[in-house]
Amino acid sequence: MTTNRSFTLISRPNGELSDSDLQRHEQPITAPAEGQIQVRTTCLSIDPTIRIWMSDVPQYMPPIGLGEVVRGLGVGVVEQSGHPDFAVGDRVLGLLGWSTHPTLTPALSGVQALPAGLPLSDAKVLSLLGLTAGPTAYFGLLEVGQPRAGETLVVDAAAGAVGSLVGQIGKIKGCRVVGIAGGPEKCAYVTDTLGFDACIDYKSADVGKGLDEHCPDGIDVCFENVGGPIFDEILLRMNLGGRVSLCGLIAAYNEAGKPVPGPYNFGMILMRRLRVQGFIVLDFIDRMGQATADLVQWAAEGKLKTLEDVRQGFDTLPEALRQLLRGEKHGKLVLEP
Amino acid sequence: MTTNRSFTLISRPNGELSDSDLQRHEQPITAPAEGQIQVRTTCLSIDPTIRIWMSDVPQYMPPIGLGEVVRGLGVGVVEQSGHPDFAVGDRVLGLLGWSTHPTLTPALSGVQALPAGLPLSDAKVLSLLGLTAGPTAYFGLLEVGQPRAGETLVVDAAAGAVGSLVGQIGKIKGCRVVGIAGGPEKCAYVTDTLGFDACIDYKSADVGKGLDEHCPDGIDVCFENVGGPIFDEILLRMNLGGRVSLCGLIAAYNEAGKPVPGPYNFGMILMRRLRVQGFIVLDFIDRMGQATADLVQWAAEGKLKTLEDVRQGFDTLPEALRQLLRGEKHGKLVLEP
Repeated sequence: MTTNRSFTLISRPNGELSDSDLQRHEQPITAPAEGQIQVRTTCLSIDPTIRIWMSDVPQYMPPIGLGEVVRGLGVGVVEQSGHPDFAVGDRVLGLLGWSTHPTLTPALSGVQALPAGLPLSDAKVLSLLGLTAGPTAYFGLLEVGQPRAGETLVVDAAAGAVGSLVGQIGKIKGCRVVGIAGGPEKCAYVTDTLGFDACIDYKSADVGKGLDEHCPDGIDVCFENVGGPIFDEILLRMNLGGRVSLCGLIAAYNEAGKPVPGPYNFGMILMRRLRVQGFIVLDFIDRMGQATADLVQWAAEGKLKTLEDVRQGFDTLPEALRQLLRGEKHGKLVLEP
Repeated sequence: MTTNRSFTLISRPNGELSDSDLQRHEQPITAPAEGQIQVRTTCLSIDPTIRIWMSDVPQYMPPIGLGEVVRGLGVGVVEQSGHPDFAVGDRVLGLLGWSTHPTLTPALSGVQALPAGLPLSDAKVLSLLGLTAGPTAYFGLLEVGQPRAGETLVVDAAAGAVGSLVGQIGKIKGCRVVGIAGGPEKCAYVTDTLGFDACIDYKSADVGKGLDEHCPDGIDVCFENVGGPIFDEILLRMNLGGRVSLCGLIAAYNEAGKPVPGPYNFGMILMRRLRVQGFIVLDFIDRMGQATADLVQWAAEGKLKTLEDVRQGFDTLPEALRQLLRGEKHGKLVLEP
């Protein structure tokens, strides 16, 4: 008989996530009450924000409570339904959590049915339409960064789930796009497959010199995922009136509890009259239909390529999150339980 | 016979300005060429930005060149004129520099004639209408901070030239206004004379606790002059969608050449989706007439009080700038040469 396997959070990680911060459960599947559905998870999205949710630093959603199933976005198929809007066999996208057969209330978990016949694999659905990937890139670049044709856009974590889409959308909008990524393979992917104008390998090159070379007119828009020394090099080269769309600070996520200094070149915000703006995709939830339509169309036209790093095995979820935060993946990291 | 006394910059200060970074000159007054005027300086504005101009860090105007007269805003009277728009006896405001009898080209030094009969002393002209004071407060708060009635505004350096005006304009616009200043006298001035709702003495009180007490609904707008640990406490209490108008980082100005970390709570920009924006009053130069009209009217109505700390003696200019940066003044620091 099939059981529901899940991971709950039992202590807040100190630095890197430890296996002992989680507890693995194997329990009978819960039948859905009225208004609920029971889903079989087919693919989970492994995102940096999961590490934030595990901590209790101030953040944009409540942290995962101790004893609760680890929060995470996923795609699945409805197996039992007590909800009038969902039928058995429907394909759904939402916060399924680290659970193979969750039973949940759709509205509370942001679960929505996908259009029937959507010609995208589970992994590509998470890459393109998962809130933490495509819509984050779309709104974070276009609404917060407000790039204009001819401007120079710098994207770090350029081979990652969000950065790869940001740079391609920047090209669609007529920008010069320079990526920063770790290692020659990722950089080659960013320029040759994704079509960025250049990519700087921060593992082997001096990022400051690389930016000087590839951004001869300075930087107008920065889509920031990383923070730390790389962001400092970018700040130093921002043009007057430049914009920083602050999407993530992955360099700091493992440092919970330990004060991490802000950018040393923070004063550039003053000197170059920059606008630095944090955002979260949920701010734009009312306009998600527009993002979905554009993203699906651009992907169909071949202008938006995604790459997924698909792992298998429910029990490897903790290790997958650690590898994500170490940069040990190539493309959007997803896991089939 | 009267001579022109001036200070030129001969080396860039390392930390605090040293007397040996400047050279004092005493030379015959230069007759103005065609298109020039010769002015007798009656009052000079001592501003933190002068210390930035002395350094060669990246900044919003060219640094003062070595061998050049120290740049600074002042009020004076035209003594000789080779320019058709200026007559002997006209009262002028502009970048007269650290010079008792400068000869200059008005457009290159931003020198403009003041309206005849303006009922303001030289010191009050610098407080209210000098670019670095009134217009900076006006545009920095209203255009960059965009406060709405009922919101909570926090202003540090609240007893200072800019902060004192920012808080009063915040009250005019219906905000709850909380200041931060150093010492009981300054704090009493901020609440009792300027009408702020509260003022936290950072020298004797825990700024974080003070903010918790006086900003029970969090902080919506921060007008930031200081940086450093005080700004970190403010960042930690910003509300979702809050705005930071970044006007100055006085805590860092003496540290040129030494890396100063940015705010430790930089991540709050992400978590609370803040907008942090640097600005300079020159961005709004086209709308200066509107600022001047409002400022003069509010002052006439008694809604905008200014306090000037008027020093005397041309030779004390270097010490006056040092005292300004140590916070050893009360109100807008000006000097009559």
